[in-house]
Amino acid sequence: MSKKIRLGILGGGGDSLIGVLHRIASSMYDSYQLVGGVFNPNYDDNIGFAEQIGIPTNRIYKDFDVFIEEELKLPEDERIQVVSILTPNFLHFPMAKKLLESGFNVICEKPMTTTFEEAQVLQETLEKANTIFAVTYTYTGYPMVRQMKEMISTGVIGKVQKIDVQYYQGWINPIIHDKEKRASTWRLDPEKSGISCCVGDIGTHGFDMIEYVTGMEVKTILADLNYLYADNKMDIDGTILLRFAENVKGVLRTSQIATGEENNFTVKIYGDKGGLKWEQENPNYLHHLTEDEPLKVLKPGHAYNSAFSLDGTKLPPGHPEGIFDSMGNIYKGVAKAIRKEKYHPGEFPTMKDGVRGMNFIERAVASHQQGNVWVEVK
Amino acid sequence: MSKKIRLGILGGGGDSLIGVLHRIASSMYDSYQLVGGVFNPNYDDNIGFAEQIGIPTNRIYKDFDVFIEEELKLPEDERIQVVSILTPNFLHFPMAKKLLESGFNVICEKPMTTTFEEAQVLQETLEKANTIFAVTYTYTGYPMVRQMKEMISTGVIGKVQKIDVQYYQGWINPIIHDKEKRASTWRLDPEKSGISCCVGDIGTHGFDMIEYVTGMEVKTILADLNYLYADNKMDIDGTILLRFAENVKGVLRTSQIATGEENNFTVKIYGDKGGLKWEQENPNYLHHLTEDEPLKVLKPGHAYNSAFSLDGTKLPPGHPEGIFDSMGNIYKGVAKAIRKEKYHPGEFPTMKDGVRGMNFIERAVASHQQGNVWVEVK
Amino acid sequence: MSKKIRLGILGGGGDSLIGVLHRIASSMYDSYQLVGGVFNPNYDDNIGFAEQIGIPTNRIYKDFDVFIEEELKLPEDERIQVVSILTPNFLHFPMAKKLLESGFNVICEKPMTTTFEEAQVLQETLEKANTIFAVTYTYTGYPMVRQMKEMISTGVIGKVQKIDVQYYQGWINPIIHDKEKRASTWRLDPEKSGISCCVGDIGTHGFDMIEYVTGMEVKTILADLNYLYADNKMDIDGTILLRFAENVKGVLRTSQIATGEENNFTVKIYGDKGGLKWEQENPNYLHHLTEDEPLKVLKPGHAYNSAFSLDGTKLPPGHPEGIFDSMGNIYKGVAKAIRKEKYHPGEFPTMKDGVRGMNFIERAVASHQQGNVWVEVK
Amino acid sequence: MSKKIRLGILGGGGDSLIGVLHRIASSMYDSYQLVGGVFNPNYDDNIGFAEQIGIPTNRIYKDFDVFIEEELKLPEDERIQVVSILTPNFLHFPMAKKLLESGFNVICEKPMTTTFEEAQVLQETLEKANTIFAVTYTYTGYPMVRQMKEMISTGVIGKVQKIDVQYYQGWINPIIHDKEKRASTWRLDPEKSGISCCVGDIGTHGFDMIEYVTGMEVKTILADLNYLYADNKMDIDGTILLRFAENVKGVLRTSQIATGEENNFTVKIYGDKGGLKWEQENPNYLHHLTEDEPLKVLKPGHAYNSAFSLDGTKLPPGHPEGIFDSMGNIYKGVAKAIRKEKYHPGEFPTMKDGVRGMNFIERAVASHQQGNVWVEVK
Repeated sequence: MSKKIRLGILGGGGDSLIGVLHRIASSMYDSYQLVGGVFNPNYDDNIGFAEQIGIPTNRIYKDFDVFIEEELKLPEDERIQVVSILTPNFLHFPMAKKLLESGFNVICEKPMTTTFEEAQVLQETLEKANTIFAVTYTYTGYPMVRQMKEMISTGVIGKVQKIDVQYYQGWINPIIHDKEKRASTWRLDPEKSGISCCVGDIGTHGFDMIEYVTGMEVKTILADLNYLYADNKMDIDGTILLRFAENVKGVLRTSQIATGEENNFTVKIYGDKGGLKWEQENPNYLHHLTEDEPLKVLKPGHAYNSAFSLDGTKLPPGHPEGIFDSMGNIYKGVAKAIRKEKYHPGEFPTMKDGVRGMNFIERAVASHQQGNVWVEVK
Repeated sequence: MSKKIRLGILGGGGDSLIGVLHRIASSMYDSYQLVGGVFNPNYDDNIGFAEQIGIPTNRIYKDFDVFIEEELKLPEDERIQVVSILTPNFLHFPMAKKLLESGFNVICEKPMTTTFEEAQVLQETLEKANTIFAVTYTYTGYPMVRQMKEMISTGVIGKVQKIDVQYYQGWINPIIHDKEKRASTWRLDPEKSGISCCVGDIGTHGFDMIEYVTGMEVKTILADLNYLYADNKMDIDGTILLRFAENVKGVLRTSQIATGEENNFTVKIYGDKGGLKWEQENPNYLHHLTEDEPLKVLKPGHAYNSAFSLDGTKLPPGHPEGIFDSMGNIYKGVAKAIRKEKYHPGEFPTMKDGVRGMNFIERAVASHQQGNVWVEVK
Repeated sequence: MSKKIRLGILGGGGDSLIGVLHRIASSMYDSYQLVGGVFNPNYDDNIGFAEQIGIPTNRIYKDFDVFIEEELKLPEDERIQVVSILTPNFLHFPMAKKLLESGFNVICEKPMTTTFEEAQVLQETLEKANTIFAVTYTYTGYPMVRQMKEMISTGVIGKVQKIDVQYYQGWINPIIHDKEKRASTWRLDPEKSGISCCVGDIGTHGFDMIEYVTGMEVKTILADLNYLYADNKMDIDGTILLRFAENVKGVLRTSQIATGEENNFTVKIYGDKGGLKWEQENPNYLHHLTEDEPLKVLKPGHAYNSAFSLDGTKLPPGHPEGIFDSMGNIYKGVAKAIRKEKYHPGEFPTMKDGVRGMNFIERAVASHQQGNVWVEVK
Repeated sequence: MSKKIRLGILGGGGDSLIGVLHRIASSMYDSYQLVGGVFNPNYDDNIGFAEQIGIPTNRIYKDFDVFIEEELKLPEDERIQVVSILTPNFLHFPMAKKLLESGFNVICEKPMTTTFEEAQVLQETLEKANTIFAVTYTYTGYPMVRQMKEMISTGVIGKVQKIDVQYYQGWINPIIHDKEKRASTWRLDPEKSGISCCVGDIGTHGFDMIEYVTGMEVKTILADLNYLYADNKMDIDGTILLRFAENVKGVLRTSQIATGEENNFTVKIYGDKGGLKWEQENPNYLHHLTEDEPLKVLKPGHAYNSAFSLDGTKLPPGHPEGIFDSMGNIYKGVAKAIRKEKYHPGEFPTMKDGVRGMNFIERAVASHQQGNVWVEVK
């Protein structure tokens, strides 16, 4: 009998890209076996998709309720152990809640919920459950992000004094200037996407990354968002001033109208002993700046990296790994947790990341709507 | 019943990195299921490894002969359909030969054989068999390599007039200068590694890449290899002059004593209408030079790329993919061939690549030993 | 008799780097001859410096007043035609004012004055004079900055919708954390340096660059500055939100505690048809992003550049020019103006740049001190 | 009286770019004053050019013979001290010879002569004269090239074991494929340009650079040149194998048909302790590779650089200098030598560089013509 962790997936069927990402990530370290789920709302599509990806259809369920009901009937050592939620955003909360209440481990796509209130409820639910919960801030799985986190925590750049994170895309540019398109895009519809587009979708990655690599908490923020047109209800660009502890300041810049940008997520952290810079589109390079020495460029897989970073690299230096490998590392961490093996704090983003991310989104919008004023983040 | 292709693997057990690469690559497009093989020479290790990676042990065989014997007893629709050969180099030939003779499709690691003679025998074997054979020149699977191939074949850079390929590593530097280490490293032992170290291991990737992207054949070569020490019998560095059709010249530079280099494989092709440059360590950037226009930098996933390139990208622009994804694309091509679906010439390297690669190695060494003279490549 | 423009210099003696920069810049296009000035406050040093740099000492004056007095005695066709002011900041205003009133053309280092009020007075002075006045925002002279300006003005990136400028240095880091050093550095002393350190010194370059390349005016700003220590009276870091016309927003980030950064001045302008990115430390590359085409990288000297850009390049493509050449282009523009030749608006920064720069500094500090609120820039 | 060195220039008039380069370079360190010369063959143009660049016409001579004659009549402390030869190549030798024989210091553009024989004669001439002679291999003046030289000589990368230099341009591509153009271009006419186009013009820069930075001598070479068309008599591309001391090998690649390349001159030197890489188009970055540490990127002006490197940088880190500054450093070195100040070996390329360069060109062509065989370089 396989020792692989039994994985179920909700959503991710059809030509879903997020489905591809999670299936590949789950297979990377020989740890998971996808055994069932609900990939599509339509049952025929659901079965068809299972056949297409070559998995048995006996545990492909009609819907989420049946999934829960039937899996719970199975003996524990056959039951799905962890469920990945890749459904539309508004379903994340109810599904995650019920799964946790039913004793399943959960890997949840971001945004974890649609409101901060839901996030808090989910947090309470998790506290009562005795299970693992991860939210997939995918970019934290990169080896050089992990190395950055380790270098900061061990004092390599000293006391952090300046933080600058950018997440620029340009994809909404051809939509936003067309009145019809902007009225009909689900991402710009508050009913479907919550209160924020740009901050919610990518700004939150930046926020999480800052707290992830520095280990510090954002205390207050001041947001200036841009909606570009009066009839557009969702931010598509924003600059957010950040304050941490006293006199530690930062800025988070995020945009979906940075025309021509693909997925330009960059992180710069400066301390009193040096600086670190990283770019998601070139994830295998970590720039370490100091005052007196040449710029150092760290790359994955070298012995000079921390054990935590090295644990996320599969091949020797010079064999570039990418976004799938980053998500694979998060799945690897969850597998360790499920198997009760020792794992590094930071191997996967947790409920706290999800809760703070939701609060950040709501507070950023509030700051903007109140006239670009300082507001607290909880 | 799963529609996945039944995959067997020979070798790749223990902490083999090439095993990790092939298992992940095979899982990327939901096309393969690893059902059995011989991972380790020792049977207990073999079983233990199967359990570790979570696959059933009923088709884990004692050795290669048993593998063949037992699998052939199975009905065709249960039998392993394709076998990946990841064993030490000297086993590639006998295993591949027997597999082809027994009707299996084969994915073979490089070097395909240890001699050109073996390669020719294998080619004849394949001609009699009616199966698929791929040799894993992994780097040809990158989307931007495919794009380069397509741009050259459609005339974007005109008639090719200058070729320059580099494959520099530094890993042998700490070994070669230590008399004991260089005497005891298997890679420098002709008994174990054939007649060449550097040309055989990485130079051949460069040679294959040139012919892959240009569609041209190298006619003659002149090699100047470096052994560095009189007691070292294997080249660890070399520059090889190349001639194609009349007045089309090139150079292939390869080294394992380029101290500090990781896996610096770069390709530059210049035609009378422009040039193309690509680097393996930054595989998601293709530089297109022309005389009158700004440098253009192509990236994967954009609609301006060819369909062949786009078929090898799983996520939108800005989500970097890497070496695992490149190998995944080769497996994807083999899957199409096995399923008799339409595929692009170039989706996976073939027997011809393997045969020419072996000839290239032997001729390069011959050219050097004869005093750096021009020799033909068949 | 030489047709060169007779140049005088105030300041820049001893081991002044800014003196080197101006002397070289003035010599680049065979247009100027340095004939006199006051390089040092001490007369002996002054004469000694003149001898050291190999110019006649007959027009090296005791002080500024003597300079004016004696030069005015000379016939107009022997008199110094243009004076470069490189003295400590607080002298810029009185010297420039008197020079303009006395009919001299002036090239003034930045900051043009120490207060906005002075700047306005100087502007009025210039309006009455009939002379040329340039303020050396040196970075505007780079060929690719000029190309950026031209591309924006001709609509290549469409309507500007997002602006992001960064000017990061780290030089003050080793000073700011040392109580004694920060108390004794002139740059942190309001008596000597005015009301701002970081915004005044480098933020203003960013501000000018934005208005220079876009041709747009910043309307309102909201600044969050950082002083890091309670006993430090001068900003050494800041993020400044910018608003232009309705819904056109931007951000200016500036720091002198970005440890390890040298002179990292980068400009990103996004319009509804594309984006442009430029970095001062790599000044010969201009990145042009669009939605549907590969990234284009423009370089100086190519025929695809505008005439204005090409006028600032002296050698064919591939021969890198730098900061001296950039300043040389500004001097070239001033020479054209003095000689009443036709020149391009933008060949040198003008009084308006200087005045707005001073206002920007004062308003940024005001915004911060008032609690990070929106204030107007005149 | 000015202490500046009295400089004369031969050639470089009209719209000569090399003239601009030398005039600016000579003015960079306040060391030279251009006092006369022969800029153009036509006397009126000559005078007109002097007026255009604003220098007195009293020492603008009718021709080279008059130049010598008249200058020798002047007392030594008024006479031109150093003469820069920027004329067409075939005039370099006779002019340099006569200048040396007449006691002038000489700065000579490359190629120093048209044949190795001439070069040897010139060398003998210099030995009898007691003057300074420099040949302008301009690229050796870059601060990071100097740093590379210093790091190698002090053993930072250990014993050099692998050398790879590239000099790729594409400018001849639009000429070479047009029968008429290639017949009428002076650079492809052996009567006007000597026996080699590509090797002579740019390959020789690569050759000199290798010997400059490593301090080693090339012993033998094997060249494979490309002429592309039977009616073309001059090489326009070539790969040249290099041998230094035993088992130290290298390759020099040079092309003018690398379509789209501007001036892509790159240097890679690997030793048994590390490697160094530098690119002329990005001259302010020196990459230092080692086995166990992150890549280090050195930049000019930092205290970690050698004194020799720092002497060639005028501004603090982050203020990019370029090709004019590189040539300026060579002029600075010559000035020190003329003034009998202490200078660093390597501040300017010498007769030996010129002589070996000429021999290299002739031997490369000979190697090719003899069928790509090894030949000695003297």
